[in-house]
Amino acid sequence: MTAKEKREKILIIGTGGVGMIAALCLELNNNCDITCVVRSDYTKATKEGYKIESANYGVFENWKPTNIVKSVEDAVQFGPFEFIVVCTKNIPDGPTPVNTFLEPVVTPIISTIVLVQNGIDIEKECIASFPQNIFLSGVTLIGSTNMNCHVVQSGFDNLSVGCFYNNSNFTTEEHDAEAKKFISLYSNEKNNVSYDANVRLTRWKKLVYNSSINTCTAIVGLDFTRASMANAKESIMRPAIKEIYKVAKSDGYEIPPEIEDVMLNISDGLFYSPSMLVDVKKNRLMELETILGNPIRIAKKNNVDVPILNTLYNLLYMIQFKLKEHNGLIKVDEIIDSSRKKEQYGNGF
Amino acid sequence: MTAKEKREKILIIGTGGVGMIAALCLELNNNCDITCVVRSDYTKATKEGYKIESANYGVFENWKPTNIVKSVEDAVQFGPFEFIVVCTKNIPDGPTPVNTFLEPVVTPIISTIVLVQNGIDIEKECIASFPQNIFLSGVTLIGSTNMNCHVVQSGFDNLSVGCFYNNSNFTTEEHDAEAKKFISLYSNEKNNVSYDANVRLTRWKKLVYNSSINTCTAIVGLDFTRASMANAKESIMRPAIKEIYKVAKSDGYEIPPEIEDVMLNISDGLFYSPSMLVDVKKNRLMELETILGNPIRIAKKNNVDVPILNTLYNLLYMIQFKLKEHNGLIKVDEIIDSSRKKEQYGNGF
Repeated sequence: MTAKEKREKILIIGTGGVGMIAALCLELNNNCDITCVVRSDYTKATKEGYKIESANYGVFENWKPTNIVKSVEDAVQFGPFEFIVVCTKNIPDGPTPVNTFLEPVVTPIISTIVLVQNGIDIEKECIASFPQNIFLSGVTLIGSTNMNCHVVQSGFDNLSVGCFYNNSNFTTEEHDAEAKKFISLYSNEKNNVSYDANVRLTRWKKLVYNSSINTCTAIVGLDFTRASMANAKESIMRPAIKEIYKVAKSDGYEIPPEIEDVMLNISDGLFYSPSMLVDVKKNRLMELETILGNPIRIAKKNNVDVPILNTLYNLLYMIQFKLKEHNGLIKVDEIIDSSRKKEQYGNGF
Repeated sequence: MTAKEKREKILIIGTGGVGMIAALCLELNNNCDITCVVRSDYTKATKEGYKIESANYGVFENWKPTNIVKSVEDAVQFGPFEFIVVCTKNIPDGPTPVNTFLEPVVTPIISTIVLVQNGIDIEKECIASFPQNIFLSGVTLIGSTNMNCHVVQSGFDNLSVGCFYNNSNFTTEEHDAEAKKFISLYSNEKNNVSYDANVRLTRWKKLVYNSSINTCTAIVGLDFTRASMANAKESIMRPAIKEIYKVAKSDGYEIPPEIEDVMLNISDGLFYSPSMLVDVKKNRLMELETILGNPIRIAKKNNVDVPILNTLYNLLYMIQFKLKEHNGLIKVDEIIDSSRKKEQYGNGF
């Protein structure tokens, strides 16, 4: 085998701000062949490439990864893939859950899938669908956006990679070997990629932010600082965070106490819209089930009372309904019985 | 004194759907002189009058009450008023709380004020400001809107009038005499005006709807039927209602058990926006403090745990903040420290 033939093949699905920096990083490391699935920006990406302004890697004009394909199905020609990096939103209640769209490109045994996504219990459906593959967890704190082939990465690329050990078809060692291989492919002198020995704790820690601050700002339509000015930190975010701590504890994970204030103060002074608020503003589905639905299901199983998280979830479930209707996933027929309409209460309520 | 001279003088403040039907009814009864304060529609109202389509009284074109004035101050010339009927929204945290805007027209002893408004504990500030006047409670189930001098009253005019007995400067008999006088002026063969012997219970009953259904639909931006399709009735509205029952009970009032389902089902099949949702859509302040803030303060005083109502309140407080900023009542300077902005977390969260 020549050196050329030994290069790993990596597929990146989800080419937003996170996925594009992963593609750039892996291409620059020059030790594997990259294929990117680019849906809405396909024509522009193939013709003009990307403008990238990266806090880690500098500025690039007309940059392209090795292969750009329009769909997961089209990616198959460049496989089989040793690693599939999933950087999409994780929306199990949406039209294409992760385990569904992965179907065409997962090669049993060969493909290891890295879920660089928010939330908890995101691996369960995937492992059930692909029991012959190892799944890794990626948690990123990168600040990066991709608007119409213009990628702006203002935060440093911090990636924690570890194993979901839930698949009993593989040993701990087999899992770890895959994580370490991916870390070695992704690491360079400019980024910060660490091995995460406890991915579930890492995910609980990130949920401290996502289950409280992300959810509340999305519900009320206020950026973080305005929400804080309206008392949100103490009136609702901190109490919601305390519930998340209780749920994590019932699940066997002690979130370090200092995370509470770190997360509450992390956006101080920033007129910043967290991801779920961005989704609501753009009429896109939110990652509701992985960020809030799953923690609540764990709470229920373990008899932990979470009235605030429950209320936030039920309200967001209604907002998700609205977003689904907007996206044509739900049809509502507004047939009003005219005799009923007559009785309608107006200003009375 | 001639018959003419004995006519009562009545001032109506708040000429939305409820206030305009009150004006029409009292004019048709022809036993008092009516003055209406009309703010935004003043020019059109004085020139062209109103088009009214009333379920009780039929259709009127170019209808005008006896006196139309632009402000409460301008109304003084037509007083002193025996009755002042307040049909505005009750927003103590807004720019003009009721006890403030009433100041110019309340004549001690002479004026009795009828608060035809939502919420609980709405009389307290008023009685403190006007200890020499009797305050009556009006609760309406009318379905009526006024858009640009076009009044559509689709629901029947049901008004319950009773006394806030909190003012110890007057006896129960003095209070009751005023309520009965107002009822006799307002009643006719076409409407349904009843004496309300227990106004606080009536207000708690109406809060069953307003504290749960009105609040939830306003938060998520869904009409009642869509909210129901998204599980709202059982997931959040009924649990919120159960909390309101507990608070009312702690306050000494037993809301009849059947009210729960009456209110939950009252809008079935209607793609109807409750008043707070209408306010949010029109960027107007909501009646948050009288509908939800005051019940929560009662709960706190009586040590009743209301986690759902609390969460709804805290979220609505943020939405009210947004509405206040939109209306110029709050100024937010978006000064972002550029070094801080660099650290900003993007897709990471």
